[in-house]
Amino acid sequence: MNQFLKIDPWCLIGEGFSKENHRASESIFSLGNGRFGQRANFEETYSGETLQGNYVAGIYYPDKTRVGWWKNGYPEYFAKVLNAPNWIGINIKIGNEEVDLAVSRVISFKRVLNMKEGTLKRDYHIELNSGNQLKASIIRFLSMADPEVGAIRYTLTPVNFDDTITVTSYLDAGIKNADANYDEYFWDEVSRDISGKSGFIVARTRKTEFDVCVGIDTSVLVSDNCNVSIPESHEEEKFISTTYTVDARQGKKVIIYKYASVLSSLYHSKNTIQAEAKKVLIHAVETGFDRLLKAHTELWADKWEHSDIVIEGDDKAQQGIRFNIFQLNQTYTGDDERLNIGPKGFTGEKYGGSTYWDTEAYCLPFFLCTSPWKVARNLVLYRYKQLQKAIENGEKLGFTEGAALYPMVTMNGEECHNEWEITFEEVHRNGAIAHAIYNYVKHTDDKQYLIEYGLEVLIAISRFWKQRVNFSKARNKYVMLGVTGPNEYENNVNNNWYTNTIATWTLNYTLRTIEFVKETDRTAYDSLARKTNFNEKVELRDWKDIIENMYYPVDKETGVFLQQDGYLDKEQMTTDELDPAQRPINQHWSWDRILRSCFIKQADVLQGIYLFEYRYDTATIKRNFDFYESRTVHESSLSSCVHAIIAARIGEIDRAYKLYLNTSRLDLDDYNNEVDEGLHITSMAGTWMSVIEGFAGKRIRNNKLVFNPRIPDKWKSYSFKIIFRDSLLKIIVTKDSVILFNESDVSVQLLIFENNHVISGNTETKIKIGEGVYT
Amino acid sequence: MNQFLKIDPWCLIGEGFSKENHRASESIFSLGNGRFGQRANFEETYSGETLQGNYVAGIYYPDKTRVGWWKNGYPEYFAKVLNAPNWIGINIKIGNEEVDLAVSRVISFKRVLNMKEGTLKRDYHIELNSGNQLKASIIRFLSMADPEVGAIRYTLTPVNFDDTITVTSYLDAGIKNADANYDEYFWDEVSRDISGKSGFIVARTRKTEFDVCVGIDTSVLVSDNCNVSIPESHEEEKFISTTYTVDARQGKKVIIYKYASVLSSLYHSKNTIQAEAKKVLIHAVETGFDRLLKAHTELWADKWEHSDIVIEGDDKAQQGIRFNIFQLNQTYTGDDERLNIGPKGFTGEKYGGSTYWDTEAYCLPFFLCTSPWKVARNLVLYRYKQLQKAIENGEKLGFTEGAALYPMVTMNGEECHNEWEITFEEVHRNGAIAHAIYNYVKHTDDKQYLIEYGLEVLIAISRFWKQRVNFSKARNKYVMLGVTGPNEYENNVNNNWYTNTIATWTLNYTLRTIEFVKETDRTAYDSLARKTNFNEKVELRDWKDIIENMYYPVDKETGVFLQQDGYLDKEQMTTDELDPAQRPINQHWSWDRILRSCFIKQADVLQGIYLFEYRYDTATIKRNFDFYESRTVHESSLSSCVHAIIAARIGEIDRAYKLYLNTSRLDLDDYNNEVDEGLHITSMAGTWMSVIEGFAGKRIRNNKLVFNPRIPDKWKSYSFKIIFRDSLLKIIVTKDSVILFNESDVSVQLLIFENNHVISGNTETKIKIGEGVYT
Repeated sequence: MNQFLKIDPWCLIGEGFSKENHRASESIFSLGNGRFGQRANFEETYSGETLQGNYVAGIYYPDKTRVGWWKNGYPEYFAKVLNAPNWIGINIKIGNEEVDLAVSRVISFKRVLNMKEGTLKRDYHIELNSGNQLKASIIRFLSMADPEVGAIRYTLTPVNFDDTITVTSYLDAGIKNADANYDEYFWDEVSRDISGKSGFIVARTRKTEFDVCVGIDTSVLVSDNCNVSIPESHEEEKFISTTYTVDARQGKKVIIYKYASVLSSLYHSKNTIQAEAKKVLIHAVETGFDRLLKAHTELWADKWEHSDIVIEGDDKAQQGIRFNIFQLNQTYTGDDERLNIGPKGFTGEKYGGSTYWDTEAYCLPFFLCTSPWKVARNLVLYRYKQLQKAIENGEKLGFTEGAALYPMVTMNGEECHNEWEITFEEVHRNGAIAHAIYNYVKHTDDKQYLIEYGLEVLIAISRFWKQRVNFSKARNKYVMLGVTGPNEYENNVNNNWYTNTIATWTLNYTLRTIEFVKETDRTAYDSLARKTNFNEKVELRDWKDIIENMYYPVDKETGVFLQQDGYLDKEQMTTDELDPAQRPINQHWSWDRILRSCFIKQADVLQGIYLFEYRYDTATIKRNFDFYESRTVHESSLSSCVHAIIAARIGEIDRAYKLYLNTSRLDLDDYNNEVDEGLHITSMAGTWMSVIEGFAGKRIRNNKLVFNPRIPDKWKSYSFKIIFRDSLLKIIVTKDSVILFNESDVSVQLLIFENNHVISGNTETKIKIGEGVYT
Repeated sequence: MNQFLKIDPWCLIGEGFSKENHRASESIFSLGNGRFGQRANFEETYSGETLQGNYVAGIYYPDKTRVGWWKNGYPEYFAKVLNAPNWIGINIKIGNEEVDLAVSRVISFKRVLNMKEGTLKRDYHIELNSGNQLKASIIRFLSMADPEVGAIRYTLTPVNFDDTITVTSYLDAGIKNADANYDEYFWDEVSRDISGKSGFIVARTRKTEFDVCVGIDTSVLVSDNCNVSIPESHEEEKFISTTYTVDARQGKKVIIYKYASVLSSLYHSKNTIQAEAKKVLIHAVETGFDRLLKAHTELWADKWEHSDIVIEGDDKAQQGIRFNIFQLNQTYTGDDERLNIGPKGFTGEKYGGSTYWDTEAYCLPFFLCTSPWKVARNLVLYRYKQLQKAIENGEKLGFTEGAALYPMVTMNGEECHNEWEITFEEVHRNGAIAHAIYNYVKHTDDKQYLIEYGLEVLIAISRFWKQRVNFSKARNKYVMLGVTGPNEYENNVNNNWYTNTIATWTLNYTLRTIEFVKETDRTAYDSLARKTNFNEKVELRDWKDIIENMYYPVDKETGVFLQQDGYLDKEQMTTDELDPAQRPINQHWSWDRILRSCFIKQADVLQGIYLFEYRYDTATIKRNFDFYESRTVHESSLSSCVHAIIAARIGEIDRAYKLYLNTSRLDLDDYNNEVDEGLHITSMAGTWMSVIEGFAGKRIRNNKLVFNPRIPDKWKSYSFKIIFRDSLLKIIVTKDSVILFNESDVSVQLLIFENNHVISGNTETKIKIGEGVYT
């Protein structure tokens, strides 16, 4: 654990400079605006350890796969999140000495990520080897209002000297990925153009041939009695720069303004991209720093208006939840169905790919409740657009007749992960994708989506399940062999309860959706049946047979659902019997030992209970929770949130709170010493879920919003908003009451503590806790 | 399948030159003498596709592990079989044109591996671009008599020209491994020294710091009326050469003699290695080519005398079996207990490491029966010497208190394989190592070995089994979870019948061995108990408890032993239902599909039945054989032989013969198109086993040799020799009789067709087939 941040409800504040924390800080203080993003690298030279990272949404490189031993079916390429041209660079020289915080004596240093405004500020005061002392104050942001614009204001103050300051602002496309498999460059230069204070590079990714054009414009403002040279430009392969020389005087500020336009061929024709980048850049320069910033912060205010969770009485929890919400909003804005939510967002390269089942299982609920419905729609549509690739992916693994296996990790719909036990076997992801359609429709009531897109995906996934199970004569049941469940501390198991459960759920939901589409729009149905060569009679019969005869492992004695066949053959231990020095076990135990132990990385059976909670009574949920929570080591960022929700469901608020803390400050407190590689973006949505679905007990049942709010001891109150279909609700939970504001014009029916309430448009209702029953 | 060799009982003959077959031929025509070896690379320049390979026994490089995704416990390094300095190189220029068979027109070409003599001969007749025609005749060998000496005679005849021939004989230490993980050089030069016709390079492996000194000496003999220059030497980093210029005349032979001495620091002090290499080289040159060759072929005659199998009536089978025996004898001569039998021997780099369980399970029986007992003893002693490393290897994976897990692949006792499902889980290898001790003692009666070495290994392995099983309350039995059996088409299974069986067998054998050692040499026992901290009371009790309460999966309906838990849940198919176009399945199916299919790569349950055949009646053996043979795809080189032996055991000679053919010509006919990477050396011993233990039914029971010979229809007769304890037997099996010659002075008791026979020294016995009963 690595706590070096001050607690503050709206800001992350890091005071004092530490080389050890630098890479972690670069992750934590990252910025993004959905279209591009970057780690909190310094503008000026930094010769210490750093992970340089600029990322442009949707731009990737298929890096040739590297494995120890090749297995049939591995994809040839792994899609890497691409480190893109670096536009923030501003080197500063005092006399002949380079400013470099790894070398200079740092007198004071402060870094502030203002989450309310979406800005990164940095102040430092250093003494160079020459004895010259310099103060600097830097602020930068990536505009939410103009999502192709970034801006930096870098203010220098000579503390005790008069000397020449040389400012070299550059754009560097000669960058590499730290995770390149074969240490290759991924970018070629298409063109570069520099004159005076501004310039452009068009860089093209190898193989994928995406073009990114970055323009930079740098100007320097000095006080009246200081001189600044005219800008001198320089260029070389993949690199352009503008240099200013300033006769700086003690105490007189030197202010550098640097603007960037970052355009990609996802949105612009390659022929005109540079001209358009120039337009965007000129507009940004003309608008000016302050007005750009104002528009940016207004956009952020709007985001906070809908997605904030306010917690009173617990600043640590408040900072934690805001950080999670802030990062989610930085990563995905939902205006392009080709984009998705990478596990590290714009904060690092690790894992690669942009899309995991995390999107459907964890992120979708957040965007459903906090954004206009089109945002969540784009997330589900993303998978529809990749259906053909998912069918091809299935074919590569031997599936036929339109069976789709969505990839474990992807950029463009093709599988790019290469561990057989994950890539080939962690097939439950297919279920999450089906379930996301259900979730989306349930929340938005956009049933038309089922007709136009949803059913086609459901049929393809159901066909996969049909082929993936087999009938065991020995058991007289359908079984599903050789899978990896959500708990990745088991590989190649048989009859993972969760996977079997979500498989038959999918088949069932597909059957119901077929009925619905048939009734609602027969023409659309017939057309889809033709398009998919749907053999209604045979396929429906097969699916029903599987639904009726699927095998689910259960402990007959206790009624606990068993994670997989043979789970009870393991030596049964609980996590409190583990030596703390051996945790996390994934850093202390060999892989085989982890595999054969009973310890669980993340919710597996409980993931199923979370999704299908309505099927089970409280006693059943509690029985399974007690059994599995005591065996779960929570060594995935996706684990605690599901456990927290279930703990709250069964009324164990203290346990829920502890689990919540685990998830909400995972990155801020860097429990696992891995934040230097980037943030756990997708699990951040899980934190939001723990509050809304956990403490507040939000559900949707029979087309109604349901709440069963509880509040952790430490909190005075908490509040949040929910967009549900046409309505917008604000919910405030205090120790003794729940207050609901209907901020929309339509009235809303809700179930609070299992009592019906109708709240008319623009009115509020206050319900005393204790007035209803918890379920 | 790739058949391009002529059938001949003693030779491999490849006529006509084909670039496509070149890499495969380089493997098949490989030479070795136990101490060093090489692929059949051409001496002269060859610009086509080639895998250059010279290998020196015991010399390896720990190449930094490369994996896609790191798992805890992976070894940091993979020990690579090292491509060593190339001493065979002789470049030939006619005028200014380089001789290069990839470029010249090849008029005729013939390559002969004479297995009787251990020589590689090559004849070619080519026309260069100049129109000059050249004939060449080359013979080389690596001396069995002087195992640090290699020699080449390269004879050139200008067919239609008078021109200058430039002969450049070189030694090149600037070589790489084709399988280097990071494309690095593994050798540094320590020193080089060249003057005139001879020179030396001492090269040192990086990290491991082995020194290899290679010396070369080249002379050129010409006819009286031709001129040859004095030798001109040249040197550069890691390279030396000697060049002769010959005024060659049409029809007049030019004969190049090249001798090499190859010494390693395994046998020589680094301080004197070059001086000693010089001595060896001078001695070779003085001895001369013909006398070196004579001594070499005499050694081979002796090897054939003991290890040959003569088959009458089936030249194809004859050539196949001889090729297997030849390669085994080339790979391992058994005079150094630090060496072992690499899966590719001296024929390629693939797989790396020198020691797999193949040694114990397949190779040991061959060397036990065909070599002086010390050879097999060195093989078992090899593991004893690495016991400490095996204990450390266990510790790395979390085992304690002296539990040994021998590595899956090793050079020096450390694990160097890195696939978790193999490295960590294929633990049955530990059982094979224990069983090899049993086999060795049973065959040689060297019980003293148990006292001095064997028991210590057995205790350490038994401790491993004790910790590797756990007691399942659910089953009220001991179980072994998360293993991979011999059938590597299953990973991470529970209760692999074979592994559970060999585990309890080991415990049992250890108990018996403890009794024996205690009774025989109490002092030695007490000393060993102290050395190993043996807690006799507790450990014996625990082991007995496991022996008595181990769980073995069995199909209650049919009595078939089940490969693992859940095997019957798989869709049951037999190999005849497989589409031939889909075979081998490992080239057509994705890994997950292979895993969840019922198809078996190699003997697994049947491996156990092979080892512990005496426990089962014929009906049981047949039942299991029928079940598993019909599900086995034999996609391991180690598979068919075991099935052949069992087929013979149950009297199914036709099936045994088909399986035998599969194994005996695997490389010659290149079934799997993979011979270009090297030969399957260890499985060659399995071929030998199929004849001796299969057709001839050789067993040892109650200290007696047992034979139940049968003969395939196609064969007129077959014969072989067996060294058993103090005796040497020759067995000839014909259609109607078995003739046994006792070639030793002591009398031998045998069981032939279950009848007792005593054959006095130097006499023979003839038994008519049908006189006894088969079991």
